[in-house]
Amino acid sequence: MSRIQQITITPIAIVDPPLLNAAGLHAPYALRTIVEIVTDDGISGISEIPGTREIDLALAEARDLLIGKDVFQLSDIRRTLVGHFGQDTAAERGATPWDQRKMVHIFSAVEVACLDIIGKITNRPVVDLLGGRMRDRVPFSAYLFYKYEGAGGDLAFGTDPAATGWDAARQKSALNPEEIVAQARAMCEEFGFQSIKLKGGVFEPRQEVDAILALHEAFGPEVPLRIDPNALWKVETAIEYGREMEGVLEYLEDPVRGQENMAAVRKALKTPLATNMCTTSFEDIPRSIELGSEDIILSDHHFWGGLRASMTLSGICDTFGRGLSMHSNSHLGISLAAMVHLGAALPEVPYALDTHYPWQSDEVIVGGRMKFVDGAVEVPAGPGLGVELDRDALARLHQNYLKCGLTKRDDLVEMRKKVPDWEFKLVRW
Amino acid sequence: MSRIQQITITPIAIVDPPLLNAAGLHAPYALRTIVEIVTDDGISGISEIPGTREIDLALAEARDLLIGKDVFQLSDIRRTLVGHFGQDTAAERGATPWDQRKMVHIFSAVEVACLDIIGKITNRPVVDLLGGRMRDRVPFSAYLFYKYEGAGGDLAFGTDPAATGWDAARQKSALNPEEIVAQARAMCEEFGFQSIKLKGGVFEPRQEVDAILALHEAFGPEVPLRIDPNALWKVETAIEYGREMEGVLEYLEDPVRGQENMAAVRKALKTPLATNMCTTSFEDIPRSIELGSEDIILSDHHFWGGLRASMTLSGICDTFGRGLSMHSNSHLGISLAAMVHLGAALPEVPYALDTHYPWQSDEVIVGGRMKFVDGAVEVPAGPGLGVELDRDALARLHQNYLKCGLTKRDDLVEMRKKVPDWEFKLVRW
Repeated sequence: MSRIQQITITPIAIVDPPLLNAAGLHAPYALRTIVEIVTDDGISGISEIPGTREIDLALAEARDLLIGKDVFQLSDIRRTLVGHFGQDTAAERGATPWDQRKMVHIFSAVEVACLDIIGKITNRPVVDLLGGRMRDRVPFSAYLFYKYEGAGGDLAFGTDPAATGWDAARQKSALNPEEIVAQARAMCEEFGFQSIKLKGGVFEPRQEVDAILALHEAFGPEVPLRIDPNALWKVETAIEYGREMEGVLEYLEDPVRGQENMAAVRKALKTPLATNMCTTSFEDIPRSIELGSEDIILSDHHFWGGLRASMTLSGICDTFGRGLSMHSNSHLGISLAAMVHLGAALPEVPYALDTHYPWQSDEVIVGGRMKFVDGAVEVPAGPGLGVELDRDALARLHQNYLKCGLTKRDDLVEMRKKVPDWEFKLVRW
Repeated sequence: MSRIQQITITPIAIVDPPLLNAAGLHAPYALRTIVEIVTDDGISGISEIPGTREIDLALAEARDLLIGKDVFQLSDIRRTLVGHFGQDTAAERGATPWDQRKMVHIFSAVEVACLDIIGKITNRPVVDLLGGRMRDRVPFSAYLFYKYEGAGGDLAFGTDPAATGWDAARQKSALNPEEIVAQARAMCEEFGFQSIKLKGGVFEPRQEVDAILALHEAFGPEVPLRIDPNALWKVETAIEYGREMEGVLEYLEDPVRGQENMAAVRKALKTPLATNMCTTSFEDIPRSIELGSEDIILSDHHFWGGLRASMTLSGICDTFGRGLSMHSNSHLGISLAAMVHLGAALPEVPYALDTHYPWQSDEVIVGGRMKFVDGAVEVPAGPGLGVELDRDALARLHQNYLKCGLTKRDDLVEMRKKVPDWEFKLVRW
């Protein structure tokens, strides 16, 4: 037995550039929470989840329930947490591009840290605890953002003139098709990505579709393209522009809000539809299947309740002829490592996964930033997640957290600092 | 790494009494195949599957593909086997109550033996490799059969007059409601079962329904009852008798053949429908969901491709509001141990599982027959499956196999030895 003896919850703030999206603007710091679990036999496991004060407090509240549990008893741990906090409901997800549910985050944090420990106990990488390695390298997609000029962090909308390469490119503004293509070129050059996603829902559709057409022109038909209007388009808009991009897009992500609307768009287009906003939980799956809302589920182990639940989701997608790929938020290397282990275990990876990682410059793991080769990340060597906490970096990023004063993600508040009368809309165009 | 170095495939024949079912009559011996895998670091794992010469040969053919594989690489092993043998199709399942597909059996044999090894490597019971233990004891149901007098084995239709208790009761004929009630009393007394299933599809429905009503009368409303006509009834028959048994049955198992017919019956009844004949693979699930064919899937890790696939099936059932329980065939303790580990790992066990185990008298594991207390089996202690091969018993049961001359299950041939003009029918009443 390896029983949970200690759970340390450390909120951190990581530098995040002024990225635009349907909900507003990224703050100068993105919040993450680092969880470390230590067992009574002295083995430590780590995980990383999106940070909000509310979930940090819930995790702290969960501590008493978890101390003494054997790390292998993941189903029982989940049952215990659901017993205490209740099952998430679909409504609790919220209308924002990020997920606001409590249980899935808490369980993901605990499960990944426990799997890290189980991997160390068994001297196996986490991928081997998920059925084993189907590939050694996991492909990711370039993730383009409209953005204001600025480096984020203390520089906010300022830039570091000493930066070079992608570090310099990352600070530049991208507010039109030309700047988006330049961003894509710089990001692909640095990371070797072989497919490209544009986070849309920022400007009126004509401008964003023109950016996609410009990317298609610049990169050619061999580079798969995606756009994600974050559910802001009307059905007619999605059909009109979807038709225009037919043959150009690999898939169209969440063009509209809600499964019914997705189903209506899907019927009208040949381009596959992907989602991380309309079908976001196991509870949503039956209706998605019934309506035929989407072709591809963009999973996120932080939102679907961990890595094993993501494998179950993969089985469901396979059973119902749906594709599976991966969503991300601003994150560091612990989340990336977990995503890579999962991505290596999936039976198929038909679409390169999303990651915000290129937009971050901080790191909390020993050895610093993880490497991309040809757009792919190698499964970390070593047992468990294969990454270890850099405690100095953790302390520094926790100081950032205390200093920046943020307690949750709120892109509306940030946006209004720049555009005072800006309003969030569920459906904009 | 623990790499597969040696795979031993041993067909065995176990004494089986003359049990009647929709496909005819059990032969005096039931065939099982025992698989033993030994790794290059000397760790051994075992499994048991239904035995047919065709699958034994395929397993032998698979050997070359599997030697050298790390036992943790279960997804890759599956991919390799599917690459060689092709994916099973739903049609290959066949119309018999047992499943005739090749891949699911082969992979189940390999996966369970590998999980046994992984358990030994990690010093963990198999249940802990499936998400951990949700219960310590797994409940089973009494499984009644119409039968001719006889003990099976070399005695065939003869009996051993020295037998006592359940051993004596097991030899008796059961061809009418009174004898079925007597069988139930003897079986429940011996094993402590708290729910009862009658294998039907043998006599015309009136007689079998009368047996259920007699059981209801004898055991009272607190003992859940099930009947399984093995898909032999017409839709009208199932609705008529299903209505008569409304409130008496816990569930009605495969009253009719095919998902469409099941859906028609399901619409007409309040009693839940269960299946192991109409929805029998992941390929069948979407249509089952679309039609609403069944409430409960009776899984069988031998037929669904192993223990991890059964956990995925559990996730699918949970997602779509279906119940999950377990089917069985004549089997020994290795299969029972695997079923118990799976049953202990399932998030919920709303229905006591099926097992033929009371009908068998042989055993191939050290320590002999597994014990039932109050109808439940405790998760075996120790790492892996927690059961070890009794090599003397294995040698003796393999001699039985060579001696009995059977190479596959064929209940039609056996039935005709007793009733020469007996015909199998897809739909009988």
